Amino acid sequence: MARRRVGLWLVGGYGGVATTITLGLATMARGLNDRTGLVTELLDFRGLPLPEPGDFVVGGHDIRRTSFEASAREFRENSGVFEPSWLEACRDELAAASARVRPAPRLGLSRAVARLADWPDAPECRTAREAVDLIAADLAAFAESESVDHLIVLNVASTEPPFSLDATHERWKSLEPRLGDPGAVALPSSSLYALAAIEAGHTYINFTPSLGASIPALLERAGSTGSLLAGKDGKTGETLMKTVLAPMFAHRNLRVQSWVGHNIFGNRDGVVLDDPTSKSSKVETKDRVVAQILGYKPSSLVTIEYIPDMGDWKTAWDHIHFQGFLGTKMTLQFTWQGCDSLLAAPLAIDLARLADVEKRRGARGPMPHLACFFKSPEGVEENDFFKQFDALLAHCRHIKES
Amino acid sequence: MARRRVGLWLVGGYGGVATTITLGLATMARGLNDRTGLVTELLDFRGLPLPEPGDFVVGGHDIRRTSFEASAREFRENSGVFEPSWLEACRDELAAASARVRPAPRLGLSRAVARLADWPDAPECRTAREAVDLIAADLAAFAESESVDHLIVLNVASTEPPFSLDATHERWKSLEPRLGDPGAVALPSSSLYALAAIEAGHTYINFTPSLGASIPALLERAGSTGSLLAGKDGKTGETLMKTVLAPMFAHRNLRVQSWVGHNIFGNRDGVVLDDPTSKSSKVETKDRVVAQILGYKPSSLVTIEYIPDMGDWKTAWDHIHFQGFLGTKMTLQFTWQGCDSLLAAPLAIDLARLADVEKRRGARGPMPHLACFFKSPEGVEENDFFKQFDALLAHCRHIKES
Amino acid sequence: MARRRVGLWLVGGYGGVATTITLGLATMARGLNDRTGLVTELLDFRGLPLPEPGDFVVGGHDIRRTSFEASAREFRENSGVFEPSWLEACRDELAAASARVRPAPRLGLSRAVARLADWPDAPECRTAREAVDLIAADLAAFAESESVDHLIVLNVASTEPPFSLDATHERWKSLEPRLGDPGAVALPSSSLYALAAIEAGHTYINFTPSLGASIPALLERAGSTGSLLAGKDGKTGETLMKTVLAPMFAHRNLRVQSWVGHNIFGNRDGVVLDDPTSKSSKVETKDRVVAQILGYKPSSLVTIEYIPDMGDWKTAWDHIHFQGFLGTKMTLQFTWQGCDSLLAAPLAIDLARLADVEKRRGARGPMPHLACFFKSPEGVEENDFFKQFDALLAHCRHIKES
Amino acid sequence: MARRRVGLWLVGGYGGVATTITLGLATMARGLNDRTGLVTELLDFRGLPLPEPGDFVVGGHDIRRTSFEASAREFRENSGVFEPSWLEACRDELAAASARVRPAPRLGLSRAVARLADWPDAPECRTAREAVDLIAADLAAFAESESVDHLIVLNVASTEPPFSLDATHERWKSLEPRLGDPGAVALPSSSLYALAAIEAGHTYINFTPSLGASIPALLERAGSTGSLLAGKDGKTGETLMKTVLAPMFAHRNLRVQSWVGHNIFGNRDGVVLDDPTSKSSKVETKDRVVAQILGYKPSSLVTIEYIPDMGDWKTAWDHIHFQGFLGTKMTLQFTWQGCDSLLAAPLAIDLARLADVEKRRGARGPMPHLACFFKSPEGVEENDFFKQFDALLAHCRHIKES
Repeated sequence: MARRRVGLWLVGGYGGVATTITLGLATMARGLNDRTGLVTELLDFRGLPLPEPGDFVVGGHDIRRTSFEASAREFRENSGVFEPSWLEACRDELAAASARVRPAPRLGLSRAVARLADWPDAPECRTAREAVDLIAADLAAFAESESVDHLIVLNVASTEPPFSLDATHERWKSLEPRLGDPGAVALPSSSLYALAAIEAGHTYINFTPSLGASIPALLERAGSTGSLLAGKDGKTGETLMKTVLAPMFAHRNLRVQSWVGHNIFGNRDGVVLDDPTSKSSKVETKDRVVAQILGYKPSSLVTIEYIPDMGDWKTAWDHIHFQGFLGTKMTLQFTWQGCDSLLAAPLAIDLARLADVEKRRGARGPMPHLACFFKSPEGVEENDFFKQFDALLAHCRHIKES
Repeated sequence: MARRRVGLWLVGGYGGVATTITLGLATMARGLNDRTGLVTELLDFRGLPLPEPGDFVVGGHDIRRTSFEASAREFRENSGVFEPSWLEACRDELAAASARVRPAPRLGLSRAVARLADWPDAPECRTAREAVDLIAADLAAFAESESVDHLIVLNVASTEPPFSLDATHERWKSLEPRLGDPGAVALPSSSLYALAAIEAGHTYINFTPSLGASIPALLERAGSTGSLLAGKDGKTGETLMKTVLAPMFAHRNLRVQSWVGHNIFGNRDGVVLDDPTSKSSKVETKDRVVAQILGYKPSSLVTIEYIPDMGDWKTAWDHIHFQGFLGTKMTLQFTWQGCDSLLAAPLAIDLARLADVEKRRGARGPMPHLACFFKSPEGVEENDFFKQFDALLAHCRHIKES
Repeated sequence: MARRRVGLWLVGGYGGVATTITLGLATMARGLNDRTGLVTELLDFRGLPLPEPGDFVVGGHDIRRTSFEASAREFRENSGVFEPSWLEACRDELAAASARVRPAPRLGLSRAVARLADWPDAPECRTAREAVDLIAADLAAFAESESVDHLIVLNVASTEPPFSLDATHERWKSLEPRLGDPGAVALPSSSLYALAAIEAGHTYINFTPSLGASIPALLERAGSTGSLLAGKDGKTGETLMKTVLAPMFAHRNLRVQSWVGHNIFGNRDGVVLDDPTSKSSKVETKDRVVAQILGYKPSSLVTIEYIPDMGDWKTAWDHIHFQGFLGTKMTLQFTWQGCDSLLAAPLAIDLARLADVEKRRGARGPMPHLACFFKSPEGVEENDFFKQFDALLAHCRHIKES
Repeated sequence: MARRRVGLWLVGGYGGVATTITLGLATMARGLNDRTGLVTELLDFRGLPLPEPGDFVVGGHDIRRTSFEASAREFRENSGVFEPSWLEACRDELAAASARVRPAPRLGLSRAVARLADWPDAPECRTAREAVDLIAADLAAFAESESVDHLIVLNVASTEPPFSLDATHERWKSLEPRLGDPGAVALPSSSLYALAAIEAGHTYINFTPSLGASIPALLERAGSTGSLLAGKDGKTGETLMKTVLAPMFAHRNLRVQSWVGHNIFGNRDGVVLDDPTSKSSKVETKDRVVAQILGYKPSSLVTIEYIPDMGDWKTAWDHIHFQGFLGTKMTLQFTWQGCDSLLAAPLAIDLARLADVEKRRGARGPMPHLACFFKSPEGVEENDFFKQFDALLAHCRHIKES
């Protein structure tokens, strides 16, 4: 029987997360690295028909013309990760993957992203429809030339600025005509890729806080094509900690008075977030989970700031001030020093593997059982990490038993 | 109908936890404080026949002759907690409770505890049996004079040094004859109180890492009298954090390489723990949970040191070094600044309330559903805090439904 | 010989710092507290003719009508400091001091301060000159009725928003005519008090980042009246740490790449700083010292945010990322948990004591030897705390030898 | 004129510090690295006749037969430092230096060190005199074959266990006869190297807490040969912080109540320190400085523990509890995450450079102006880092002016 081929199309292909995914899949396929960090390698997931690292074929879109090798070298220098010997051993895989990265159509880029854009012959579009069609053509060419059994479009691009939805975004029939309108762009950049994936029935996973498929009209459209959907915003570090610690305070009936979280980091995402309009969507997601878990809103503060010399090392300091018995005020502080892309990449691979399991069993639409991977899980109110994880395990048990 | 009277007998009656329990019950009964910190006040526990703060009547044993008021004032000065106005408002309750504290029989005190002992006419015993009988007489007098419906003996005394068990501790019939032996003491101090409680069918809860009822012969004895039992070692701070964070690392397949925890504090328990023989049992409990949750043993280190000026403020610094994807080493550090007795007291009250619920429904023996309250839950392998909490909720639902 | 009477006029009289100064002087005069925290009690200062706590008589201006007792009680509740017994013992002194606090003339209050203003019959002014004359009248009445030998006006009010200086602020002769102009206010609030002090030859000390006397025209005016001047912005916590640690990095030739400092606190100053326009002057001062000491500008970030439940406990987290030998990146983090008013008050008393020493020896004008007390010392380039302290000691030796 | 040749003889030649020194000198000589971390590159030292990196020739003794290249590769893997490209570029220098490393004579090794020893044909000695003579012969052969103008013996070996001195160590004439005694070893290992250096008039620098030359009889002997001496125990991280922060508390009259410092690290030194007898000398040095600077002894605690996965990353958490005005208790915590060998190596090079300056001007004996480099500066009471640094600068100014 032919080996399964899972296409993984990376939107933001040369970014830190995408580069780590590509290099990580290659080194795992070659047995150069173990699988620490992959949730799907836990005992609980044994028995599921998960694709292996070597079953994935990577492609993508980016706004900068470079290569996975160059991107990995730059990452190594700034952040002190990746063994030089891996780059050498996987040179061929990286080159092949680089050849499958296409220029992102230029439309509706945020100011911050536009400053970084650097691919001379990237196609310029006048309308959302034009952009979606260009993206769709790239996806179709990739799926065909690589004979993929299942194509997953994964958004790992930088966060886009907030985008105002209006009534026309509520229904597909009101949105569709606007797509061809050359005036105000009808959709944010992330949603163009989501729509291209959805219209072709591909799977769409949004690892960022950008809108992506989270628009009623697009969800409606996905209903008709049967695309698998998951999102949004990978829960990698500080927010993971929040959704782990907030339940502890809740279960002990300790009253959180304030939760302050300051994040600093220095990767290219940071350059984008340094633009205040891009930052707001990120901060909002990070701030909401605590109140949802506690059932009341403590004072809170979240900042996320770009400090270039930090590289990919996202360092978070959280200060939690809480009242215990007899009104006694106490404090918990933590410092999280995590390499952000190295935390994100294995979760993205987990999502792709679990999405492929769903695809093989003929599932369609949103995948709420994947909530534990996201800061802002689509259609799921539960933010308690352990309840989310239990739900994932229950789903997997259900699959194995059926 | 007459109001229920629950007797709460505090072993270590004038210690920080006992004083906080006594003052806390009094201020809550008077409505001077809300019930933050009491787990049993969460919505999930509504509908259970829980005794109210005013339903408890407090007594106890101590090795130092003093009073709850003096103890509370000293605590206030050293640790900056307790409003002076509460002491004034509850002066009568505190005095009444002080009148119910009896001198601890002197037998088999550890060196560290013996140094602190200060109750001139405390009875001296030659054998374990003598001590147990003296304790039993005090319990009986209290139960009678206060007309208690249910007597709960709660160990909140300082940690005792490790005690070597031998074959005679395996069976009641081999242990019983040794109790009268005036030579080597047959039982550690904490177990004398446990045995007195067990023989009279009272409930025994061990909030400390001392042995208490955790001896096969005593468990066997409890089997015949029907005593309710729970223990051991209240999970208040750093260890609570460990049993909350270790599951996060496990579920994300992040490999913990080392977990270092340093604790400093300055209350009277600390004087006792400063004696190396007393400290070892405490450290062992704190160290074990992580390996049990992870399923492998990372490098680890736990210290707990007495720094007098810290008062009751137990400060813990934990440094967790873990490997993520592609072998990348990352770090989580936390600092916990908790007032230890104020964290312990509400949990002890919760345990007493939940034990009373069991008593009313005629339950007997160990109460494994209370595991989430303990560092080292008797007869329960599970240390994951959230799984323990789920088990408690399931038990409560079961009661309410039956 | 009559005892010396030093008048200490507190601008922002009922604020946390002012209340701590007033209560602190009273408790020290009564011997209820030792003198920890007073720099002038170090051995190096022995032999100087320093006024004793009981030599001070306190008055002041505020925008809220309350009392030192009420203010101290509120402070106690929010921040857990001050023994109730002190308030009782010093009731008379506090009441007497409260009787000497006058309503601040209302003119040019910032939006944030205006919201807090609450003194019904506070005089409204139309021009800066009117306000200065009202303030001067209050100072004169205080000086006379209390027979003070030396009057020190100390600014411990909340930080005011940035104020744009123009050419007319360069020279007294161009500024003076504008003072009577009923249009745009010629001076920020802090400078009205400074001018009133200067015109009467009193001493003016600015413990805040507000402008105060730091305006060329006012300095010129002080030159003719001989007022002693010191400022600005007391160096109490995080900035003190910066001026202590930055020299260490410099002397070890370790290259600081970024210095991030996040501050949270919850006193009334915070309400004012929560207004972005008020915050900017504070942040700027805190940020500058590191670059001045290092001789180059690392990436830097300073935030200061109002978190109500923190009370007066200013908590700062600083993350310093530095390069050592062979480009190796290392990290120092610190968390400072200080009670801000309790750190500020003794320094303010030190400044008043040292200013009185200068007054007695007939000195006039700026006091650059006091630089170690300030974040932004007037007319002094040196920010290295130890060099500043050495300069203070050298000055004191000079006085003692002359 | 012939270029100056400074011989740098590393005792503990293949350890982390020695390897970093050797690689660092080579990369700096080739211009591959800048000189960050070298104190002697600060402006204040310009004008002194300092040897350049290329002027040093490295040799040494070790107990394990390996090579600088292997040692550097191992270090790189465990600690994530050193660019692979440097090892390639400097392969020849490293090989040449490895050829100059001699087996350490085996005598009086501590238990911990003996376990690590691995150089098959290392000479066994029966007496201290035999060992000293063997070492002296190696030094002489090195000095001659490399034509060195000045030979500096630098102790960067692991810490040795405490060694009891007795009356015979007071005077050279009573110690000398014991050296040939085949019974109990007359001197600890570090002192054998010190004596070999001293007897030949070479310079001896002790970067460790071991005894080295700090024995009255050896100091007396050095007095007759004129050896330059410096020591002991390089001040690289946590202790540097202590000698920087303690003066701040002292100058602000803030009363330190307790200073707790916990250190963890995982390099080969750690294996040695993990032996309790070796650890005690280290802890003692680290603990003393605070009391000496403050003038009183706060509660204190210092631990230093071996956690293998930390590699060379020495992480220290310090918790400083202090009282401010009106008895208010406050807290400062810091976490220092430094790569220990990378902090130590440049200081060791600084010491060698500054010692060579002394040698050229004909100085002899102890060099107290180097106190700022040491935790426990020989013959210097001052531990305040800034006063020590001022003394160094004053000395250098004096040299330049004379």
